[in-house]
Amino acid sequence: MNELTHFDDQGRARMVDVSEKNETGREAIAQGEIKVSRKTLDLIQAGQMAKGDVLGVAQIAGIMGAKSTSNLIPMCHPLMLTGAKVNFKMDIENNRVLIEARVKITGKTGVEMEALSAVSIAALTIYDMCKAIDKDMVIGNIRLVEKIGGKSGHYKREGEDSWES
Amino acid sequence: MNELTHFDDQGRARMVDVSEKNETGREAIAQGEIKVSRKTLDLIQAGQMAKGDVLGVAQIAGIMGAKSTSNLIPMCHPLMLTGAKVNFKMDIENNRVLIEARVKITGKTGVEMEALSAVSIAALTIYDMCKAIDKDMVIGNIRLVEKIGGKSGHYKREGEDSWES
Amino acid sequence: MNELTHFDDQGRARMVDVSEKNETGREAIAQGEIKVSRKTLDLIQAGQMAKGDVLGVAQIAGIMGAKSTSNLIPMCHPLMLTGAKVNFKMDIENNRVLIEARVKITGKTGVEMEALSAVSIAALTIYDMCKAIDKDMVIGNIRLVEKIGGKSGHYKREGEDSWES
Amino acid sequence: MNELTHFDDQGRARMVDVSEKNETGREAIAQGEIKVSRKTLDLIQAGQMAKGDVLGVAQIAGIMGAKSTSNLIPMCHPLMLTGAKVNFKMDIENNRVLIEARVKITGKTGVEMEALSAVSIAALTIYDMCKAIDKDMVIGNIRLVEKIGGKSGHYKREGEDSWES
Amino acid sequence: MNELTHFDDQGRARMVDVSEKNETGREAIAQGEIKVSRKTLDLIQAGQMAKGDVLGVAQIAGIMGAKSTSNLIPMCHPLMLTGAKVNFKMDIENNRVLIEARVKITGKTGVEMEALSAVSIAALTIYDMCKAIDKDMVIGNIRLVEKIGGKSGHYKREGEDSWES
Amino acid sequence: MNELTHFDDQGRARMVDVSEKNETGREAIAQGEIKVSRKTLDLIQAGQMAKGDVLGVAQIAGIMGAKSTSNLIPMCHPLMLTGAKVNFKMDIENNRVLIEARVKITGKTGVEMEALSAVSIAALTIYDMCKAIDKDMVIGNIRLVEKIGGKSGHYKREGEDSWES
Repeated sequence: MNELTHFDDQGRARMVDVSEKNETGREAIAQGEIKVSRKTLDLIQAGQMAKGDVLGVAQIAGIMGAKSTSNLIPMCHPLMLTGAKVNFKMDIENNRVLIEARVKITGKTGVEMEALSAVSIAALTIYDMCKAIDKDMVIGNIRLVEKIGGKSGHYKREGEDSWES
Repeated sequence: MNELTHFDDQGRARMVDVSEKNETGREAIAQGEIKVSRKTLDLIQAGQMAKGDVLGVAQIAGIMGAKSTSNLIPMCHPLMLTGAKVNFKMDIENNRVLIEARVKITGKTGVEMEALSAVSIAALTIYDMCKAIDKDMVIGNIRLVEKIGGKSGHYKREGEDSWES
Repeated sequence: MNELTHFDDQGRARMVDVSEKNETGREAIAQGEIKVSRKTLDLIQAGQMAKGDVLGVAQIAGIMGAKSTSNLIPMCHPLMLTGAKVNFKMDIENNRVLIEARVKITGKTGVEMEALSAVSIAALTIYDMCKAIDKDMVIGNIRLVEKIGGKSGHYKREGEDSWES
Repeated sequence: MNELTHFDDQGRARMVDVSEKNETGREAIAQGEIKVSRKTLDLIQAGQMAKGDVLGVAQIAGIMGAKSTSNLIPMCHPLMLTGAKVNFKMDIENNRVLIEARVKITGKTGVEMEALSAVSIAALTIYDMCKAIDKDMVIGNIRLVEKIGGKSGHYKREGEDSWES
Repeated sequence: MNELTHFDDQGRARMVDVSEKNETGREAIAQGEIKVSRKTLDLIQAGQMAKGDVLGVAQIAGIMGAKSTSNLIPMCHPLMLTGAKVNFKMDIENNRVLIEARVKITGKTGVEMEALSAVSIAALTIYDMCKAIDKDMVIGNIRLVEKIGGKSGHYKREGEDSWES
Repeated sequence: MNELTHFDDQGRARMVDVSEKNETGREAIAQGEIKVSRKTLDLIQAGQMAKGDVLGVAQIAGIMGAKSTSNLIPMCHPLMLTGAKVNFKMDIENNRVLIEARVKITGKTGVEMEALSAVSIAALTIYDMCKAIDKDMVIGNIRLVEKIGGKSGHYKREGEDSWES
């Protein structure tokens, strides 16, 4: 039996046929983080208030990354996103920048890959902007937090929430 | 003082000027992982041997992702990569797929962002290929393991190695 | 108060959420120009009739540029354009090539950025094709001439018209 | 009279205006082939069963190529494909790999260019993967086999069929 | 006689053969502007200091636009840019935002198209970010200010200077 | 033994490491054709002289296609092409348009894939421009004619020549 829908009965990769699915409002929220040194965290925070806005660059990269998803992930459908946001929260105690992306569409398929890609590209951009002073940063905990709409129904990761809702 | 080189003295983002740097052989190795359910892990393993090769798709996506880096990360220089590899290791005990990317260039700037992007895109592709049966997967531990060549010299993350070397 | 809709209440950039907007027929017309030397103008005109069709290349570049808009402009929504045209008019008296783009869609958001991008990319292509003999060319007067459809209603720049209508 | 719809009455290229066309289910099937040496054919066949899966790489390239069509073909409309498949058949007798692509959409315009592009990119990828041992390969017989849906109606190339149907 | 080097003797468009040219340091500076209403200008200025940083988004779009040049302008060579900057100046008296781009490379061909594209994309992005309150904005005066390096030698537009030098 | 260099010893796809290869002048010539109906051929020929220049559009698409090769073919290296041409010849007797592409580079790897891609994209564009009147066209005989430079030496397909040389 074929449970991985991106493969056909012969095990060949394909872009799943969603022609018969309904166009409905859909939304996905993903989160992730990048662990940095204390010094890097301080520079990122300083930039938010004054010169060198690392997170401003990462935010734009994340939103553009959501739009590039179907070019990057081989079996993803091209989609006309109707909304995309990327936001950040500083976790001073643990030297982490938390990242959240929220993507919306009216369409035949969900946008969880777009939200996860936005988080990933935003995290990579923070790495790029700070790598001159810190090569030890670690990107992690990239996961789907919530998924609304579509036939498979509402998904919510237990015990986790969008920090915007 | 400006330690984040992607900003100028006024704090404005820029693509760092590397015109005066030497063209040298450079290489970067990055690793990461995706945590999956036992069932998902079994299906991925089965696919390697027979039908539905999840990791074969992710490998190609990762290599193509390395080539897309300068389109995705705003301040990254466009680069003519001279080699790129993405490989996987199953960690059965911990229900994880481990991912390693190795990228090479003869150029004026390093390829750590390309290696990190390759790992990220490969991980996102595994998520996409398996999300019909498992939405709880978590991508993490994406980090630079080694960086060879260039003025800033050899970087090696303590206690970690490429599993190919 | 937030009048720039591409920012949220905290001033963070976002792709505006248009999920709730209706799909309607929309159209946008933009114009612009490139000022060139008399000699360049003569060569461009000669090419239209015989060898070296500068405007033929610029026309295709403009149409493809309309399709690239959401990859170029960070907060633009990806859109399925249903029609695009780029045309030119020689203004011999003032040594100018006039450029007009007309873009159509049935969708949730307008296509003025696509029309403006088409004009800009067409103008840049004329510059590229002629720069071996003329580096003093100036691209200018790029503006929205008319916008039809959508909630914000009909926009028409005073005293200006599409030269096709 | 203007029979080539991608040109207007003045003979200027344009993206045809399909705004008034209906959104209907559409599908296109294209086929093609690559002629290779006996040795190359053997290596491709061996790869399907074991190491070095040439056709696995070509399949993904073909599906991604379908998604890139509107970036490659100047007058093609951007489209939200709802399904795409690329498959292969070994013709041992004639030293050929046969390629078939099937693309689906619910939209205002057909997807024959997407199916033909998928076959072409898959064939080019096979060439690339095997060119170290065989530079004499020839790509050919790329053609539309069937087209379903849309105002122009059903098209079926005489005497030819999808090998999947 | 063929003075437009992007055409051959038969008048056919081509990417000029620069194989025999030397790799040298090259640099190009371009400028342009966008005319806006007083209210729009005030909002842009406010954003620089606090919420809603229009120019921060435009700066990134301009730098990424420089990297996209060879995908947008048909006969442009793909180039490995070694540096790119986009900056802005408020001209309060005339309700204009002035834009300057500076691009560098070590290569066989100049980067004036990259600098002009960066200015154009930055201007289009300002238009996009402000169009909800002002549709009358006009982009103009996009021109090459200086070009350094290469066989054709130093070009400097009379009476104009980079405001950074 | 691993003769397909795009796979490693374990049969995993990779972008071949060319770091140690020399930068030399390289050139590749590819040819192909599209078979059309007599009526289509007449319309294409008429367009060359007057309105509706199908081959002018295909020429530009082919040159841009050469530049897109490394985004389309998974294991192709990104390359800075130094020249690209696409030309056509009408074969009236056999109702064919013949296509030739010539691509040059100074680099570490050959450009045969770029020449083959240029021919393929040009042929697909002819199909697209003429498909309103002719769906039976067949693209074929796409092959490498000559390859100059690089360690593997001179390749010339027996009995075939560039029609430009």
